[in-house]
Order: sequence, then structure tokens, then C-alpha cells
Amino acid sequence: MKPELEFWYEFASTYSYISVMRIDELAKREGVLIKWRPFLLGPIFKSQGWATSPFNIYESKGRYMWRDIERLADKYGIPWEKPSEFPRNGLRVSRVALVAEQEGWCEEFSRKVFQANFAQDKDISDEAVIASILDSIGKSSAQVIERAKSDETKLKLRAQTEQAMEKGIFGAPTFSAGDELFWGNDRLEDAIIWVKSERI
Amino acid sequence: MKPELEFWYEFASTYSYISVMRIDELAKREGVLIKWRPFLLGPIFKSQGWATSPFNIYESKGRYMWRDIERLADKYGIPWEKPSEFPRNGLRVSRVALVAEQEGWCEEFSRKVFQANFAQDKDISDEAVIASILDSIGKSSAQVIERAKSDETKLKLRAQTEQAMEKGIFGAPTFSAGDELFWGNDRLEDAIIWVKSERI
Repeated sequence: MKPELEFWYEFASTYSYISVMRIDELAKREGVLIKWRPFLLGPIFKSQGWATSPFNIYESKGRYMWRDIERLADKYGIPWEKPSEFPRNGLRVSRVALVAEQEGWCEEFSRKVFQANFAQDKDISDEAVIASILDSIGKSSAQVIERAKSDETKLKLRAQTEQAMEKGIFGAPTFSAGDELFWGNDRLEDAIIWVKSERI
Repeated sequence: MKPELEFWYEFASTYSYISVMRIDELAKREGVLIKWRPFLLGPIFKSQGWATSPFNIYESKGRYMWRDIERLADKYGIPWEKPSEFPRNGLRVSRVALVAEQEGWCEEFSRKVFQANFAQDKDISDEAVIASILDSIGKSSAQVIERAKSDETKLKLRAQTEQAMEKGIFGAPTFSAGDELFWGNDRLEDAIIWVKSERI
């Protein structure tokens, strides 16, 4: 059995995008299994007294982040276009990702959503945009979106976000293995090394 | 002439400590000149509405930081003892560092202060602790401390902190080269690569 790492991400998060575009190659090379765990940062930020992303609240931090992401995209050779709206509401698309998680196509769907948001400046809160992504990966968008709107899916997303909070997650991306948390795209390599060595 | 990188740090900052212990070896190996620029985070945090370190304000973020630093110290082989008080007030010791900056021994002094705070759990806000560090590196502590208390030094530290804010610095450590900022110990390597390539 391969060592396993949980990958907690939020669709609006710029640094999650960088990890989404890097994680597959790294995980395959290192023989680590990634469990994709979409969750919502909104309720976590709210519990810290923030009504929006800290990058919008703290001006110099925000200005820095946009430049930093530009440099990271360049460093890793990742397509990048600054979204005209930030953060985009990830509630609807996260519910679809929860359906995808249960059906086993969460990774493929999530990557497409991140590319839409951060490489194509598409509004991922828009149901039509979500439907077209679903169609592009061969899913029946109408059916999936209906399931995403069910109370069951809504509760599952809420539970997933609560689980993130209980684990002590306060930002995205976060990688987790047991009680161990690794926060930020910068910690992806360390997290992979950690789960590998834990199993030796 | 060697490429130059400014190293902005705050004596209370845990991640600054990790960089303080790593930067010399890296800079020598890569042929980069480091300008040590101590400053105060307090006024910057205050301008963001924070009365103390965000690691104290946001509980899960704080809990994470202490674990993360422990892992980083382990990863880099850096001595580490969690300080019994955090953050320690760096005002007095920063003024001494400003004197040291002018006299050319800022690096040696700063490293000793960080080690006192984060490897020996000494109270670096205490004048006796500062004096004993000064003595240990062969400085006349009484004379230096007197100079550190002068209006000239106080104004210099204030100006340095204001310069940090004007540059858009919002946390420590930050590495800067011209208008380019690199925030966090995680960016040290990127910052060094940046200044080297800028000069080619």
C-alpha cells in the first residue's frame, strides 16, 4: 500500500492552484497517493473575523501575493492569468467536487476548475461555466449538478469543512498526514517526504 | 561587485531565526552579499489592527507555527528551544543592532541575539542579557548601550521600520532586491537566485 497524503484545497485559493498543477507529477514520482479534499475557506476565515480573503483585507500582503504567484507560475512553468475577480465564490463548484470525490473523478474535475479560474479568468461560481467543465470531461452536467444541489451533498461539504477546522486547518492548500499539517504550496515537498518516511 | 540582497528581520520572529541560521552559508556559497536590516514588526502589525503577533491572535495558525518551526529546525539541523515568552519585545535590542549596523558588526550580534531567544530561552528584552551578548563578542556594552539610547539611534530605527513599510514589507523575514520582495524563510533560495540572475 502506498503512503497517503490528504490534499486540502479551496477553489478560490491562488496558492492551491500552484499545488494543484504540481502535485500529480511529484506524487507519482515519489509513489505517494493523494486524497483530494476540497473544502471552504469562507467559514474558517469568518471564524477568524475576516469577511473576505486576508489578501483583500491586508493591502501589502495582497500586493505581495499577486507578484509572488506570478513568479511561482514562472518558476514552475504553470499557465497564469490574474483573475479579474478575487476571491471567486467556490461554494457551488465545491459541492460538485464533493460529488466527484464520491464518484472518483475529483482530481480531474478540480484541476480543470482551477485552470478555468487562474489560467482562463472564467467565473467558476457560474453554473454554466461549471456545466461546460463537466461536459468537457464527459460527465452529464445536468445530472451531476442536480446531485450537487442535494441536501446530502450540502451536508457532506459542510462536514468536510468542519473536519478541516477540527484538524486545525486555517488556510489552503494544506497537506495532512495523521495529526501532522503542512500549510502552503511551499510545504508540498516536505509533506511528501514526511509520509514516505513515516512508513519506513 | 557582488550581487546584494537586503535581509529584513525582526528579533522576535521565529521564521527570521531560521533564516538567520541559514543565510550566511548560502550567501557565501552563492557569492551574494547580504545587507542585514533589523526592523520592528510591532508598528506594522499595529497598522494592520493587530496588538500582538498574528500567531497569538489566530490560535490554529499559532499552534501550527510552533510545530512547523520545530520541524524546520530539525530539517536544517538548527538548535531550537521554544521561548517561554512570545513575542519578546525587540525594541531595545533592535536599537543596539542599529548601532551595530553602523559599526559593521550587526550580523555577528544579531545571530547571538537570535540564538539567545530561540535556542537558550533568554529574555532578549532585558538589558543585562543584551550587555552579556555584547561582552561575549568583545564590545564595550556600557558604551554601546548608551549609544543605542541616543535620539539619533531611536530615529534611525524608526526610519528603518518606516522604510520597510514603504517597501511594502508586512512580515519577517523579508528579502528585498530593488522593488522585488521575497517574504518568508521559504523564499530565501529564490531571493538569492533572483539577485544573481538580475546581474547577469
